This record gives sequence, C-alpha cells and structure tokens, in this order.
Amino acid sequence: MAVRELYFCVWLAITVTLTSSGPVDQGELHVIHKRQAPGKRPSCQTGATVPATRVDTTSRLQAIRNLFPTVPGGGVHAYIVPSTDAHQSEYPADYDLRRGYISGFGGSAGTAVILTNKAALWTDGRYHLEADENLDCNWTLMKQGIAGVPSISDWLVDQLKTTAGARVGASPFLMNARTWKSYSEKFTKSGISMVEVDNDLVDQVWTSGRPAQPNSAINALPMEYAGKTWDSKIGDVRGRMRAKGAAAYIVTSLDETAWLFNLRASDIAYNPFFISYAIVEMNRVRLYILNHATKLTQNPTDEATTNKLYQHLSTAMDGSCTSSSGPCVEVLGYSPSVIKTAVSDIASNSSNRVWVSLLCNQAIYSAIPEAQRIHDKSAIALMKSKKNIVERDGMQASHNRDAVALITFLERLEREVKAGQRWTEVKAALELKKERLKQDKNRGLSFPTIAGSGSNGAIIHYRPTNATDKQITTSDMFLLDSGGQYLDGTTDVTRTLHFGQPSDYEKECYTRVLMGHINLALLKWPKGLYGREIDAISRAPLWEAGLRYLHGTGHGIGAYLSVHEGPGRISLSHSLNPSDAALEEHMYFSDEPGYYEDGQFGIRLETIVTIEFAQTAHPFPNSVFLGFKPVTLVPYEPHLIKFDMLDPKQIKWLNDYHKRVEEEIGPRLSPAALQWVKARTRPISYPTTNSATTYTHSALFMAGAVIVWLMSLG
Amino acid sequence: MAVRELYFCVWLAITVTLTSSGPVDQGELHVIHKRQAPGKRPSCQTGATVPATRVDTTSRLQAIRNLFPTVPGGGVHAYIVPSTDAHQSEYPADYDLRRGYISGFGGSAGTAVILTNKAALWTDGRYHLEADENLDCNWTLMKQGIAGVPSISDWLVDQLKTTAGARVGASPFLMNARTWKSYSEKFTKSGISMVEVDNDLVDQVWTSGRPAQPNSAINALPMEYAGKTWDSKIGDVRGRMRAKGAAAYIVTSLDETAWLFNLRASDIAYNPFFISYAIVEMNRVRLYILNHATKLTQNPTDEATTNKLYQHLSTAMDGSCTSSSGPCVEVLGYSPSVIKTAVSDIASNSSNRVWVSLLCNQAIYSAIPEAQRIHDKSAIALMKSKKNIVERDGMQASHNRDAVALITFLERLEREVKAGQRWTEVKAALELKKERLKQDKNRGLSFPTIAGSGSNGAIIHYRPTNATDKQITTSDMFLLDSGGQYLDGTTDVTRTLHFGQPSDYEKECYTRVLMGHINLALLKWPKGLYGREIDAISRAPLWEAGLRYLHGTGHGIGAYLSVHEGPGRISLSHSLNPSDAALEEHMYFSDEPGYYEDGQFGIRLETIVTIEFAQTAHPFPNSVFLGFKPVTLVPYEPHLIKFDMLDPKQIKWLNDYHKRVEEEIGPRLSPAALQWVKARTRPISYPTTNSATTYTHSALFMAGAVIVWLMSLG
Repeated sequence: MAVRELYFCVWLAITVTLTSSGPVDQGELHVIHKRQAPGKRPSCQTGATVPATRVDTTSRLQAIRNLFPTVPGGGVHAYIVPSTDAHQSEYPADYDLRRGYISGFGGSAGTAVILTNKAALWTDGRYHLEADENLDCNWTLMKQGIAGVPSISDWLVDQLKTTAGARVGASPFLMNARTWKSYSEKFTKSGISMVEVDNDLVDQVWTSGRPAQPNSAINALPMEYAGKTWDSKIGDVRGRMRAKGAAAYIVTSLDETAWLFNLRASDIAYNPFFISYAIVEMNRVRLYILNHATKLTQNPTDEATTNKLYQHLSTAMDGSCTSSSGPCVEVLGYSPSVIKTAVSDIASNSSNRVWVSLLCNQAIYSAIPEAQRIHDKSAIALMKSKKNIVERDGMQASHNRDAVALITFLERLEREVKAGQRWTEVKAALELKKERLKQDKNRGLSFPTIAGSGSNGAIIHYRPTNATDKQITTSDMFLLDSGGQYLDGTTDVTRTLHFGQPSDYEKECYTRVLMGHINLALLKWPKGLYGREIDAISRAPLWEAGLRYLHGTGHGIGAYLSVHEGPGRISLSHSLNPSDAALEEHMYFSDEPGYYEDGQFGIRLETIVTIEFAQTAHPFPNSVFLGFKPVTLVPYEPHLIKFDMLDPKQIKWLNDYHKRVEEEIGPRLSPAALQWVKARTRPISYPTTNSATTYTHSALFMAGAVIVWLMSLG
Repeated sequence: MAVRELYFCVWLAITVTLTSSGPVDQGELHVIHKRQAPGKRPSCQTGATVPATRVDTTSRLQAIRNLFPTVPGGGVHAYIVPSTDAHQSEYPADYDLRRGYISGFGGSAGTAVILTNKAALWTDGRYHLEADENLDCNWTLMKQGIAGVPSISDWLVDQLKTTAGARVGASPFLMNARTWKSYSEKFTKSGISMVEVDNDLVDQVWTSGRPAQPNSAINALPMEYAGKTWDSKIGDVRGRMRAKGAAAYIVTSLDETAWLFNLRASDIAYNPFFISYAIVEMNRVRLYILNHATKLTQNPTDEATTNKLYQHLSTAMDGSCTSSSGPCVEVLGYSPSVIKTAVSDIASNSSNRVWVSLLCNQAIYSAIPEAQRIHDKSAIALMKSKKNIVERDGMQASHNRDAVALITFLERLEREVKAGQRWTEVKAALELKKERLKQDKNRGLSFPTIAGSGSNGAIIHYRPTNATDKQITTSDMFLLDSGGQYLDGTTDVTRTLHFGQPSDYEKECYTRVLMGHINLALLKWPKGLYGREIDAISRAPLWEAGLRYLHGTGHGIGAYLSVHEGPGRISLSHSLNPSDAALEEHMYFSDEPGYYEDGQFGIRLETIVTIEFAQTAHPFPNSVFLGFKPVTLVPYEPHLIKFDMLDPKQIKWLNDYHKRVEEEIGPRLSPAALQWVKARTRPISYPTTNSATTYTHSALFMAGAVIVWLMSLG
C-alpha cells in the first residue's frame, strides 16, 4: 500500500505544523493542486446545502468547553486533540478515536483544536474533501499543504495573543514528546504555556456510545514463526541498554511489545497487537496489559498456540515472577497512571538512566528527569526490521500463498469481466478477501483493500465504499492494492490491470512506472545508504516524461506485524527523520512507484523486496554491496508494457522475475490460474519492436538478396 | 575539481568532531582503508628515522603555552587553532595560516589543539600521510575517520577531566558560531568552559617570518561582466532583510563582499577576493577593507576597470558618504575590533534585529544579543548562485575560451608523448597554465592544477610537486583537473586520457564513470529537489560493478568568484547541511563522478553544467521540471569507451555533446587541434559492437543471399 507511515506523520507533524514555511515534504505526502486562502467553508455559507454525512458536534463541544475551567492549575483556554493513541499507533483502536468523536471527521490523519469560541481541524490533502463532508459548521477546516493555511501553533499564538497567561491543554499520553516540546518552545515565546491534562477532556465527555476498550485474546507466536525466543530478544535489548548506560528501556509502541514477547492479538483492526507497555530492566521485565488478569489464564484462540500467556512468559498465574528459576515476565495491569508511576519510580533512583524512544509520549517522557533521560532511537525498531532466518522463510512462504490467492482471484476477475459479468470495486475487495482467508495460516488482511477502477484508481488512499463504488470494466484501468496477515508473515502487493485495450498513453505510463520499479529492484549500492538516497532511481523514468507520484517509493513491512514498519523507508525527504535508519540486509521494503492521472486512472506497481548482500564484478576495498530480491511473486501485465521502451537489463529482470513466478507459484495454482500466469510470463526478447533495427534487418536482407541476384546474373 | 567545499568542511567539523559516532559522511569525504587505534606515531618511536620535512615546533609551542596564564579571566588550559580565517574561507591567505605555523602541518584541513603538556592535530584521510611527514614528535596525529580516534571534544573532555574549572580558549574570529556552540554545550556538561580569546595567541607568538597581510589592488567588475549593479544587489538584500524583519545584514564571506559590490582583487591565491566585511542596513552600507585608505584612491590594476574604488562606490575620497545624492557605500578600515564594535553598536538599539549567516564567526555572533539575532542562511548565497543573463553568457564564453586552451594543450601533449618526448605532471601543469594565460580575459587559475599520471591519478586531491612528479607515458592513464579565472567566468574541467592501449578493465571503469556522468546530465527532475536527492543517479552504473568514488558528485561554481560555491551541492549526505539549498534554474554545478584504483590509476570526468527549465512530453500539473545543460565543451576519449555498454540515450547525449564541441569550439582551434577534436567527436551509432546484433545481421544477409541463390537456381 502506498507509503504513509505514522512514524513519519508524527515527524511531519513537527515540521509541517510548526514551521511557517509550509510542508517540508510537499512533493511527497501532500497533493497540492491549487492554492487557496483559508476562510469560511463554502459549504457553511448561508444557504449552502448541508451534506447528510455531517456530525452535529455542538453539544460535544459545549461539554468539553465546560471542562476548560476545571483543569487543575488554572484551567485551559484551548485544547488539542490529536488522532493517535498513547502508543502513537498508525491505526488506533475504535475506543481511541477521540479526535473522530469530538470533530465528527473520521479520516486517519488530523488534529482538532478547540477554543472557547472556535474549533478548527487540520488535515492533509488526502482528506480535504472528506473532512468537509464530515465536519459541521462549528468547525473551520484547515487544509494543510495549501498556501496561506496557518500551522496549528501559529494559529493558536494568533488566537490567544490577547489572552494574558494563556494555557493550551492536551493529554500528555496522546502527543509524542518531540511534538509537545516543539509546541511548548514556540508558545513560550508568546507567553503561552502547554498544560498536561492527565484526565483527558474527551475521555470525560465521551460517555455514551463509546466503543468498548479492546479486549482480544493474546496468542503466543510459536518459535517456528518467531525464530527467536522472547528472552533472547530481551537479552539483545539489554545489550543495547548496556551500551548506552540505560538502567531501563520503556517499550511504548504496540508492534514492539508484540515483537518482543512473541505475542499476537487483535486489539486493532489489521494489526495483530494488544494494548500494552513494557519496561525492560537488567534484572526485571514488566509487561502491562489491559485486562491482564483475564489474559493471563484465558485459552489462546489461535490453534497454533498451545500455552496460555502465563506459561509462555514463565509467569506465575497471578502475573508475578516469584520463582527465581529462569527468565520470567511480570504481567501487570495497564493504565496511564500505573505506567507513569512505574517509570517515575525507576527514575527516583538518580543513578538510573531511562531510555525512551523518539516516539514516546509526553507523559512518560516527562516522568523522567532530563539528566536521567536517554531520548533516542528505539532499541527495538532496527532489530525488528532485520528479519531472522525463520522470519525470512516465513515471509517468502506467506508471500507465496498470498500470490496464489491474488492470482486465483485475478484470473476469475478477468475472465468474468471479459464475459460481461458485473463486478465492482466493493465486490472485488470482498471476493479477494475470501481468497486470502482460504490460505493456510491466514489471519485476515493487513489493511483495507484499495480497489480503484478508472478515476478511483487516481485517489492514492482510496477505499471502495458503497457511495463511491465503480464498476470494473474492459475500458478502464484497475488498480488493486491489498495484503494479508499470516502467522508467518505480512503481505502487501499492488498490481494494475486493464481487461480491454489500453491507450498508448496508458501503456506509456504503465511502462514508465514499471521501469522505475525495475530500476530500483536492479540497483546495487554500498551498504550505509539511507532510502532517501536511492529513491530518485525509481522516479527518473517518470520524470523523463514529466510524470510524478506524490508519495514515497517504499515502506518497511513487518513479519505478522504492521504493514508499515520503521525505521527505514525509501522516500525523498528534504528534512531528516531522526528515527530513520540506513538500509541493511534482511530488511523488507515495498518497491511501489506509481502514476495517477486525476479523474482518469491510477497506476501503481508494488512488490515487496528484501535486501540481500550483492555480488559485484569488481568489489571496492572494504565495501559491502547490497541489492534487492523480490518476495512478492505476481506477474505484471504484458499488454500494458511498451517493450521497446525497456533496456536489456530491465527485460532480463522482467524475464527472470516471471520465470520465478511460474516456477515457484505455478505448481500451486489451478489449471486456469496457471494458464493465466503463463500468458503473462512468456520471456520477452530484446529489441522486439525497435523499428530502426527492423529497418536495418530488412535492408541487410535485401542487400544480400540483391548481391546474389547480381552474381547470378553474371 | 573534486568536491571539498569549506562550507561543508565547516559543517562536517560539527558533526564529525562532536559526535562520538564517527564521520557521518564517511562514504564521501573520508577514504578509510583500515581501522587503527590512535597511539604513539610509529615515526616517533625511539630509533625511527625522522623525515626531513618535519618542522620543529618546540619553541612555538613553548611560546604559546607561556601565554596560557595571560588570557584574561583566569587563563586557559587548552587552546584550539582552526585552519580557516575570520571569513571561514576555503583557502585563507598565507598570513592567516595560523594552524600551519603552530603545527608545521601545511594541508588545507586540520585543527590543532594545544594543552600545557600535549599537542594534537586532527585531519582527515586525505592528509594522514602528509601530516605524519610534517608534524614533529611534539604532536599526536589524530586521524579522523579511523575507528577509535576520539573527536576533539571527547579528547579534551578526557584530558581535562581532572582539571577543576578547566578553560578551553580559541579565537572567536576563527571559529564559526555553530561549531563554537557545539563545543560549548558539550564542554558545559563536563564543567569546562569555552573562552573567547580576542587577542589570538598564535598572532601573539607568530612574530617573525610571518607573511605580510594581503594588500592587492581592488578592481571594479564592469557591468558587461557583472550584469547587475551593486546598488541593485543591495536592494535585493534589503528586500530579504525586510521579509525577515532584519535591520542589518552582516556580510562575512569574502566571495559575498566581492559579488555584492562587483569588486575583485587577489588577496587570496586562485580566489579574486579582498579581506573585508560589510554591513547592510536600510539606509546605510558599510564596507570594511584592509588598508582602506590606500585602496580608495589607488589606480585599478585591471585594464577593464576605469574607475577608482571611491568612484565605483560613489564614495567621497575619504571613504565617507557625505553627499546625499544617490546610493553610496561607506568605506572603512578593517580590524576585528572595528567590525565587532560596529555590530555591537547596531545591536545596542534593542529594536534592531541583526541577520548573520550560519557561517558567521563566533565573535560577530556573540556581539548580538540572542533575542535580536537572526542566525540563518546567507542573504546572498542563493542570489549569487543563480547567475543573471550576463553572467550566464560570460560563463559560456569563458568556458569556450578555456576549452580552446585545454584542447590546444592536450593535442600537443598527446602528440609529443606519443613521439617519445619527456613530459611530466609538473611540466603539464605549467604548460597548460601558459595556454590559459594566453586566453582573452584570463585572470589566472581557479585552483592548483591536479595532473596525475598512473597511480598519482588515484590520489583524489593530488597536486604534482617535484617530490612526487611522474612521467606521462603511453602506458598510463592521465587525469587532468584544472580551471581558470576569467573576467567573465570561472572554469573547472577534468578529463582522463590514455595515450596508448588501455586495458579492458581501464576501459570498463572509464565507461562506467562516463555512464554516471551522462546519466546525471540527462536527468530531468521536478523543481524543489536537493542535490543529495539525485546524486545516486550518477553512482548507480559504478555501483553495479562494485565500484565507488568517495567524494561528492558536484559542487557549485562562481562567476569569476570561487571555484567551490554554495549553497547547493550534489552529494550523498546522511546529515543535512542547514545552509544547503534546492537546485534551481541558472545555478552552475560540476558533474564529476570518478573512480580511483589505489596505486594504479584515477579516472574523473568533470563537466560544468547549468540548470535550465526542461521540456517534458506529459507535464504534471503545477510542476516545473529542470535539467542540466553542459557548459564545458571538451571531448571525451572514445578509445577509452566501451560503446556496447552505453544505452541509446547515452549514445545520443554523447553524439550531441561532441557535435556542440565541434561546432562551437572547432572554429576557434588551430588545424592540428581541430583534427584532434574531430578524431574524438565522430558520431557513434548504436549498437556498434553488439555481437548478438552483428551475428543477426550476418545471418540475415546470408539468408537473403541463400534465398536469392535458390531462386536463381529455380
């Protein structure tokens, strides 16, 4: 799926919202088509028709404003509601969609700011239309990326300039410490203070209709999939702590607790996580889990898990570690105050230094005195991104099964569309899901399927809904971006198809996307580079013709974890994300250039690739070279390719890839699906349609003929 | 010439010397071939032979240590001597080579640190050998880029850990404010303070044998070369000041005073600068010049200049601006205290905000209270780098004359070497210089010529000397990197030649360098990118075979200014230089990939290119595309090219380029030189030596023949 990692949204939040120079990364994450000054929304002018999709937030806003004076220490004059949870999750649980509740806007990215007499919501270009449809007229829509739209902090400074001793509140659990600090520093200059509101105001007003806190069963991930025991991983974390002189490491990201303890659950849709924190010390490991008492002893729901949680973690049934024999994890109840107190307690010993990651929330960050705080890259993210041998085998195996599901579905889709049967995007997403669920070890999808026919394909983060559903036809391009969760891996694949006669222009665009896709896959580079240093390689063939795609080229992907995983990424970036890491062997990335013609069609080709050591003819002294190897094995669409635009190396890559698809996936397919594959994987020779060469060949043939004819005359 | 801009060395100084994680940019600027811990230098062990090149610094060190207690406020325990001048110049005047004097080490990069009982010098991989030959055994050589070598600050913290209230001194004029701040912050944590020593200790001890302060004549650059008057440039600077709310902008870089006032001199070798500062205010412009009284009235030494300095600047002959008619520059005497006082005076009005660039020295920086200080990118660097139409015409014209000089020289060199005449690198540099000096408007060289035969070509920053001079033969590669200063432009060109039969491997390496060189020249990209985002394009063809070059791909270049000019650059970079700017139209860069085989040969191909708007077939909405156009017009070496490795686009670029060389430079050449060019610029067809194609052609010819023969039999 197209890159939009939270770990970068969080980072962008700082640069984009706190600088007046506008989006740093506008070339990538923000689709900016016209410049427009903020003002009253046209749909809120007198007489405008009010969309039925709007949520009336009047009473919610009143309720929260009534709480402003109750905040300890002097009340607040404004309140910020971010979109994430206490773990900076990309996809929070429904329970945690506070910004969605208070504003009515349901998009994944956005920040609400409430004053006593105004309310405003900031969101990026992906969501400008949707936000206008969701927000009632209590709200000003702040379109990030549009010239003239103020940043949150600039706007707050302006709004509060006449309020002496102004106080801006926010939950310290829902904002990461770096963002908090940036606001705080900016506000301080204008006499405004940031106030930590431990008892979140939205939590206080969201009393009816709130979804329950998630409470899914927790299953152990067997060693045949994890490849490394949790206590061995703890040992590695401790090694890193030792190197930094840290007495404790606080695990705050949900994919890190899942990875570290080899546990999976389903507290969050598409993400096999459970709401938790962990604290690793040199002689103690604590895991804080929501409803821990139930979780400890409940039966696993996953047939692959044979042990209960307490058995997996060598804990006593009450969650304690009473026995001193061998490694054990203490399991404790989860609550904001409990974790904050635990961190404070560790820090109360002034010789203890405590390591928190750059994404850690403000509450935990501020519980540690500055002199004792190590605020640095995650101790886990890099380890997690470099898959061990068992995970690598699992990633390939799960991708192979996933390829069977996708190919089986595509063969049927093409056959039935061509036969005139009615297929729509929603039906395609549903039927494809069924194919995935049939596969061995499947555990659902890794994100909502993006199925875009024709113009819907041009909406980069499109999700088919009944309101937008389009038919899949023989005259439109069809973009399909989907993925699954499997016990042994996570998949994410995009192919773009055309079941009729594509235009020459559509073929040129597809071919240029393919050229960029292959150029990146072919690249070898000396170890040590960051993804941003190689990203242009995949864009150059599009740029040559004036084409662009306004998203990153590649994101990391987890092994039965998140479909978007740090710390590496392949993306142009004018500013640096301090969490970013260099590309290393055994990391997995998507390779997904695209091209989107507004209102017409979208093209994206996404293949998961893994980084391996590369052999070179003349290895430079003391250098190690890396390269990519495809993991996704699903054919491309030959009748969308202009072969004469490809160079011999690209043709060879394509032939080699298709040979692998046929050899590795072919034997698993039904006869019909195998035929569908074979029609796409026939080797291509070079040059096939080069007219100059053809001309030369004809001329030579004629010349030979004429000479012999002349000789025969003699 | 290969990239090694000071504006990046300064930036690197912060990242490299202040972080314990080692060189951030090691892939680029530091050649690291082996890991080695610091310790006593082998050449300083008992019994080792002492190189004759060593300078005895015993008495100099004693003299400077005697001054330690005299520093006001409590003396100092250590003293840092950087290599630059008060203007952060890449090439300081001889008078300013303080670090060279105190240490004996004459390389361009390095920092000396003197304690009461120890002295150490840090320098990078280019200079490890030279430093060992220059430094006597009073000095520890700290090889930056080698694992285990401490940073300056780490070493000082360790050395001074037992000294209560330790004070580290340095001249605040010789260190930029960012570096100063980084030291200061690090030291503070260990109870060490940085002390500004206004009366530099080296200045106090360097009493005999010190070169005189530079005192070259200052010439106005006529409008036919400058293209824009100084008062119009001042107007632009004021526009930027207004946008930032700055009452004053302090010009501290020497290329900025030269550019701003359309003045050139020769205070520094290869650089047409004069030692100066300037202060631009809304109603006043002050220019501080060393020996200003003489300079005002002396006759210009350049025949193109008709006015004396006071006439050019509309100043009264005493340097004042007494008349109120029209724009005028006040010319004042230059001294550290005068400039510092002037800045303090402006800042004494607390409503004045003062803008200093990121490279500004600590003395000026600290003369401005923090609340009034704007410490940001230079107000001038970006303007200067985007050449106006007159400068663009001049750049092409000067490059055309420079091409005549180089081609004329190369034809003679090749002819005479092949005829068996003795040529060496030193002779080549001298004779090439003569050719350049013959050219119209020449004002000398833009940097010392790099002429490297065989293994000397592999030393990236080689300068031929009598000690290293090698013969140029028909069996060695020959790398020639040189450039000239002209009234209308600055040039910098590298070509690599072989006057005999190169090996297949040499040809492959040359071809891969050429492929990278052409790929960059062919690139089109959407405006807004930084050079670091496109640099990999030129490396990929080398990486494919495991080859690397450990320097940047391109540096900016001035118009009769510095051969290395910011703010843009084309270079991989793991950290960002905050002075860096995006690539824009009318900037000029070198395109200079290379490959260096230690002990064997060096290859670099360097062509100056300018950025122009690019036409594309399918322009993306609201996007402007940019591309490069070659400015240097000197042929490549066909017999070093393996044509079958090039793709059709590369072949077309090469043919088009060579056509331009023949058409634009050809008519200016002697018959012999023209023949030399023509032998190199013949168009190449594709594919020329593709054996598969040849085989196909022969087969078709034969088939045609056989068929007709059969028909003739019938």
